[in-house]
Amino acid sequence: MTDITLKLNADPYILSALREDVTSEDVTTNAIMPKSTPGQVDLIAKEDGILCGLDVFKRVFTLLDFTTEFEVFVKDGEKIRSGQKIAEVLGDIRTLLIGERTALNYLQRMSGIATMTRRMVDLLEGSKTRLLDTRKTTPNMRLFEKYAVKVGGATNHRYNLTDGVLIKDNHIGAAGSISRAVKLARDYAPFVRKIEVETESIDQVQEALDAGADIIMLDNMDHETMKQAIALIDGRALTEISGNVSCENVDMIKDLGADFVSSGSLTHSAPILDLSLKNLHPTD
Amino acid sequence: MTDITLKLNADPYILSALREDVTSEDVTTNAIMPKSTPGQVDLIAKEDGILCGLDVFKRVFTLLDFTTEFEVFVKDGEKIRSGQKIAEVLGDIRTLLIGERTALNYLQRMSGIATMTRRMVDLLEGSKTRLLDTRKTTPNMRLFEKYAVKVGGATNHRYNLTDGVLIKDNHIGAAGSISRAVKLARDYAPFVRKIEVETESIDQVQEALDAGADIIMLDNMDHETMKQAIALIDGRALTEISGNVSCENVDMIKDLGADFVSSGSLTHSAPILDLSLKNLHPTD
Amino acid sequence: MTDITLKLNADPYILSALREDVTSEDVTTNAIMPKSTPGQVDLIAKEDGILCGLDVFKRVFTLLDFTTEFEVFVKDGEKIRSGQKIAEVLGDIRTLLIGERTALNYLQRMSGIATMTRRMVDLLEGSKTRLLDTRKTTPNMRLFEKYAVKVGGATNHRYNLTDGVLIKDNHIGAAGSISRAVKLARDYAPFVRKIEVETESIDQVQEALDAGADIIMLDNMDHETMKQAIALIDGRALTEISGNVSCENVDMIKDLGADFVSSGSLTHSAPILDLSLKNLHPTD
Amino acid sequence: MTDITLKLNADPYILSALREDVTSEDVTTNAIMPKSTPGQVDLIAKEDGILCGLDVFKRVFTLLDFTTEFEVFVKDGEKIRSGQKIAEVLGDIRTLLIGERTALNYLQRMSGIATMTRRMVDLLEGSKTRLLDTRKTTPNMRLFEKYAVKVGGATNHRYNLTDGVLIKDNHIGAAGSISRAVKLARDYAPFVRKIEVETESIDQVQEALDAGADIIMLDNMDHETMKQAIALIDGRALTEISGNVSCENVDMIKDLGADFVSSGSLTHSAPILDLSLKNLHPTD
Amino acid sequence: MTDITLKLNADPYILSALREDVTSEDVTTNAIMPKSTPGQVDLIAKEDGILCGLDVFKRVFTLLDFTTEFEVFVKDGEKIRSGQKIAEVLGDIRTLLIGERTALNYLQRMSGIATMTRRMVDLLEGSKTRLLDTRKTTPNMRLFEKYAVKVGGATNHRYNLTDGVLIKDNHIGAAGSISRAVKLARDYAPFVRKIEVETESIDQVQEALDAGADIIMLDNMDHETMKQAIALIDGRALTEISGNVSCENVDMIKDLGADFVSSGSLTHSAPILDLSLKNLHPTD
Amino acid sequence: MTDITLKLNADPYILSALREDVTSEDVTTNAIMPKSTPGQVDLIAKEDGILCGLDVFKRVFTLLDFTTEFEVFVKDGEKIRSGQKIAEVLGDIRTLLIGERTALNYLQRMSGIATMTRRMVDLLEGSKTRLLDTRKTTPNMRLFEKYAVKVGGATNHRYNLTDGVLIKDNHIGAAGSISRAVKLARDYAPFVRKIEVETESIDQVQEALDAGADIIMLDNMDHETMKQAIALIDGRALTEISGNVSCENVDMIKDLGADFVSSGSLTHSAPILDLSLKNLHPTD
Repeated sequence: MTDITLKLNADPYILSALREDVTSEDVTTNAIMPKSTPGQVDLIAKEDGILCGLDVFKRVFTLLDFTTEFEVFVKDGEKIRSGQKIAEVLGDIRTLLIGERTALNYLQRMSGIATMTRRMVDLLEGSKTRLLDTRKTTPNMRLFEKYAVKVGGATNHRYNLTDGVLIKDNHIGAAGSISRAVKLARDYAPFVRKIEVETESIDQVQEALDAGADIIMLDNMDHETMKQAIALIDGRALTEISGNVSCENVDMIKDLGADFVSSGSLTHSAPILDLSLKNLHPTD
Repeated sequence: MTDITLKLNADPYILSALREDVTSEDVTTNAIMPKSTPGQVDLIAKEDGILCGLDVFKRVFTLLDFTTEFEVFVKDGEKIRSGQKIAEVLGDIRTLLIGERTALNYLQRMSGIATMTRRMVDLLEGSKTRLLDTRKTTPNMRLFEKYAVKVGGATNHRYNLTDGVLIKDNHIGAAGSISRAVKLARDYAPFVRKIEVETESIDQVQEALDAGADIIMLDNMDHETMKQAIALIDGRALTEISGNVSCENVDMIKDLGADFVSSGSLTHSAPILDLSLKNLHPTD
Repeated sequence: MTDITLKLNADPYILSALREDVTSEDVTTNAIMPKSTPGQVDLIAKEDGILCGLDVFKRVFTLLDFTTEFEVFVKDGEKIRSGQKIAEVLGDIRTLLIGERTALNYLQRMSGIATMTRRMVDLLEGSKTRLLDTRKTTPNMRLFEKYAVKVGGATNHRYNLTDGVLIKDNHIGAAGSISRAVKLARDYAPFVRKIEVETESIDQVQEALDAGADIIMLDNMDHETMKQAIALIDGRALTEISGNVSCENVDMIKDLGADFVSSGSLTHSAPILDLSLKNLHPTD
Repeated sequence: MTDITLKLNADPYILSALREDVTSEDVTTNAIMPKSTPGQVDLIAKEDGILCGLDVFKRVFTLLDFTTEFEVFVKDGEKIRSGQKIAEVLGDIRTLLIGERTALNYLQRMSGIATMTRRMVDLLEGSKTRLLDTRKTTPNMRLFEKYAVKVGGATNHRYNLTDGVLIKDNHIGAAGSISRAVKLARDYAPFVRKIEVETESIDQVQEALDAGADIIMLDNMDHETMKQAIALIDGRALTEISGNVSCENVDMIKDLGADFVSSGSLTHSAPILDLSLKNLHPTD
Repeated sequence: MTDITLKLNADPYILSALREDVTSEDVTTNAIMPKSTPGQVDLIAKEDGILCGLDVFKRVFTLLDFTTEFEVFVKDGEKIRSGQKIAEVLGDIRTLLIGERTALNYLQRMSGIATMTRRMVDLLEGSKTRLLDTRKTTPNMRLFEKYAVKVGGATNHRYNLTDGVLIKDNHIGAAGSISRAVKLARDYAPFVRKIEVETESIDQVQEALDAGADIIMLDNMDHETMKQAIALIDGRALTEISGNVSCENVDMIKDLGADFVSSGSLTHSAPILDLSLKNLHPTD
Repeated sequence: MTDITLKLNADPYILSALREDVTSEDVTTNAIMPKSTPGQVDLIAKEDGILCGLDVFKRVFTLLDFTTEFEVFVKDGEKIRSGQKIAEVLGDIRTLLIGERTALNYLQRMSGIATMTRRMVDLLEGSKTRLLDTRKTTPNMRLFEKYAVKVGGATNHRYNLTDGVLIKDNHIGAAGSISRAVKLARDYAPFVRKIEVETESIDQVQEALDAGADIIMLDNMDHETMKQAIALIDGRALTEISGNVSCENVDMIKDLGADFVSSGSLTHSAPILDLSLKNLHPTD
């Protein structure tokens, strides 16, 4: 994550998270450490996985005290092994204690998502199909979770309702037909938007093709129907497979030659990757 | 969640989540539905579990349009079965479409946590030991996740660094001894705070007892050590077992007679509970 | 503008504008009108033009007092003539006085933009070329100004730096070549983004075509070069003409058959449309 | 603009404008420039005019990256000529690209206002009459636009409804008479406020004088009536001429000897001054 | 306080105060009252004084729950006696309990200020001298405290540094002389500002007069010097006495015939007026 | 106050207070000091008392200009005498003038509270009873006022409604009995909360004891009843005396041997401690 993204877009969320954890002060730390004491703590992996979110982890501490320093041995996107030292954090011990939980809450969740994403990307290896995320993200975490998906090796779908057009069954119903829905969207949306249409049958795929959809989503279709659909589309639109895709079943769609497959579980159900701050000690 | 909590404490988070999903407008919906059209959609369970977060789910829609109405068939904390209809939402179809994802993102996550909590609570049945959460929550979700833990049948640990005193090894190191740390905390903290001390050995348990700790945490101890510790404490302080407790291993501590056991996985690694809005249709 | 857009996205700007005009209170009005008095005022056009922004105008008053009522005789996008009564506003006279300036400041500016846009759209009539806006908007007014452009009959370009990819000369320089820049963008950006490339010569147009650009911008080219470029592209990418286009010179590009022409002047240099609140009187 | 005004009062607006342009990140720049690269770009005038807003222009970049540096060759209020280099900006090329549009949107608009103001001030030269702005400013731009008016050589009228008393016809109607309105305002308003009364006839001017108004506005009067009014007032109150004053007609009021003339067009209808960032190149 | 002032200007402060008192929820009330129960509570005076702040008191409750109702027997500015019932509040008992402290904290402080102000105003009775407040207000309470001063019968001095010009000794030193300071201020400040000069000697009074100051402050002068100063000014400027004025000594300046006397103690040292919510009971 | 508390928790309040005092700019200072001029000013005591709030005082200036420097001769909690120099502030004279009032408003109020608190603490000397504050704080000042109470030598009661359980008569009424209220609270509240019960009679004290209350408040009891209550409790719960306690009457409860006595007057009625910035002069 670039410094500009952190400052402009991430900081309001990170500050809000820190204030969620500190209403007025950390009473324990302030009681016991009335004076600033320089110290160091190690960031250690407690599981194997893909690391993600180091810039956010660091930002938590530097927002509390901009003199906090870091020695970092791993980069976002790299594999880490249980027991491996990832970084050292140096600063006022009070800063290290007060920022610890919030910093880890971000880092563990982002790494958990990157880890699951990498696993699914690896399962897709050998096919041309690329993995996508969805809008099924944790509220107020989308910036961080979509970044983690990218670090894990997948591609982002639209960021939100404003920056992508996705015509679902309800929109089709309201418009009367796929062709009318696509036309309305093309007239209304900024012209840089691609138009995606969700389809549930071969007939709908044909209609979407005829209407000039840029992307056609094959939603909850069986394997045979998807095969037919992709043959029918034949490269005239991008194709996205969707519907309860997980690590357990993703390899069943590898042979289809779809352009993309999307999975909500990347962001809504990835367990965290266990990481820990250990060996806190004064450095004087 | 009471209306006052929603307005005073939850609304800023919910509005922020809605704005995360809508930078300027939902281009698809506004393109295709230029006029207000009354409609209805059903909230359906796609898995078995414990429902949690209905007030937040509803609030998402009423923040967009206060005339949205709800018919609700289940209450927070009740068991739901796959396929069961949980509620009907009635309002402008544009409201239903624009609020859908954010409302479900909250509801699914809160229900996922309540479901895992209930499972662990059930595993503890028969013992006197009550289940606790931790501060390992998703950033900017603590209000919602701590509520879900309570709905799932567990008890909340401290909300944040301000409202509870928990003396960890680092604090003990800084203070010089457990007894000095407890004294400093008692002098400094608001007098309504209970003082909790994290211990890793029988010697530390004895020191914490002598210092008058209100709560003694047994952190990552083996079963035998915990047994000795609880016998030593003998009701003179509350006891909390901590350290990588999950549904897989929680029943190993049932026989110990501890007052509490805390588990971070409730909030950091519960998968969502799958829920869906289905059968959207105009009501005119 | 829909009610949801107003509440979710416009309200923070409108409230900020009202607070810009009222630090603590309107001293004149509060001095002279200590009591609530129902009254009415007419919204009158003082120039011919296209009306735009009525929902924002109304929202200013209802944010001050939700009981304010409106009788409206014209819709956004309709032509109005000098002297025409557009609407009546009914409410507490203090609300009418305190909201007047902020409501008109929005309405006049949005109508000014819609009026200039319509004029340029009319000048393009007969060609296939559609008019686009740019990101040259007034800070903190983009939501309102892009809407006014649409009401005026033009199409929006990307909303901001996040939701569209536009590769300029600097990006090309940094990447080394157009083809490499397009590849990097396609790998990095959410897959729903179209890729636009800014070109300044026929050679660059050819490179952009070869790289698979979705949109090719012809930036500050002379008429003959644009003609060649459009012939070369031949429908394989969308084309956008750009560079100091105004009402004075727009018809010179009508014959080129470009898909789009963009003009910054729509939002950065349109004079307001003069509108006024007249005939304030008590209604008791 | 002083650093304190920037930090305390301008920053919230500037940050909001930057976030308007960047929802989550600049995808184009981040795709193509994954690493920080030092670079430089020139700020060039593309029209003659008065420069205004350099501190705001600089602040946009330093809010993104406080290490950005500037070499500046012109000061606010100075004349610039088409083609003239005004400043050089040095910093991470990503900062230069991401801040460009927002920085120019402020600078061009403020310079446009200063340019029109200077032109009108020059037209008033030789008379004692000083030029004033109004509250007809762009929402959320008043701080910047009032500053530009001052840089252009004019004087500010009241900032907003709180810090000046201006009794208009509606207030007079509500109070029953000018004398009663002035008395109510003097009793109610902070005692440091001057009281201004809007008049539309010689009779009203006489009443305002008798009531002890500090400032008398002559609103939309013909030339002869204004002449009589100013003779009648004879220095016992300050005089302000108001009503559709523009560069085209301002010199018709030069002979009247009024203290002030106000013009809304300065802030609501000044076209921008065209400025550009050119010659971006790496400096390594 | 009008509804518009409450919504536009007071609400952000009141909501912030409520959130200061409720981080996530009122645990006591929510534990014991899981259901909404209609109830009533009486607002009772426990001391004699002047009531002030009823609209703010009510707003605290209606921000929590807009259905809360009030029966009010006294108005802002009226005398109340110990034991007197001022109002009844009706609503959900949880709302009454959660809002109680914040509502009283505002009401007691505002009434305390109004009470001290009224006392000092009464002590000035018989003189022409009117009482003023200062900027010595409690941070983030100025809106409420300046209102209380006005309700108590005094007049407001400038609201803040933006809306009044007060040239102090430091400004005079920086400018070189009073006359130059006044000239600079008149050139720079919006023309609706009165210019006030702080003087400490007869010589300075003479300079301020010559410079055309609108208001001359006599700062910490002895009685005899003030007498001379006021004779010298002789109505050519407004006069303000300043310097440690309190209820104990204010009557010593009654004979001087100054226009105004200002006292910081009104807002920085008034004790609260004791008020209480009593007799809470369910109304079913 | 630690730097982290200032940044994370105090800054939003301090910035809001500065913006309360500066809507757009300090017109006087900016008129007369168009250039940055280094200067110095002395912070002087004008009364004897306890100093409190130096970190907040400094933060006001460094938020305006981070280069402002301080030489400080006294620490929070130390006694100061009238006339004593407490600190020197060095920086741009404009910063010194613009920050002066807000910095002093905080420092004077916090010192006033610390001074009254110390006086009451001294009056309690010789007893085991410790002094407590209440939630009767000034809205949006709790962080600062509770800190001042602690600096004055007393102990904080709960911070707000979330972080302490205090069962009052209304809660008891709603629950049906003290024992049921305590049980409900213990089940619902985070397990780290102590449970306090407000009692008004010996019978209630007995019930609270039996219910296992951690703290028993003796509210508005006469001296004899308090004596009996404390004898009855006999160390089985902490005891808190409450009800109109002030410096005038606090020594009447010294002999009772209660653990705590709380006084609202510390925060709601302490007059400020008079402090002043003097001898501003340029340092060049």
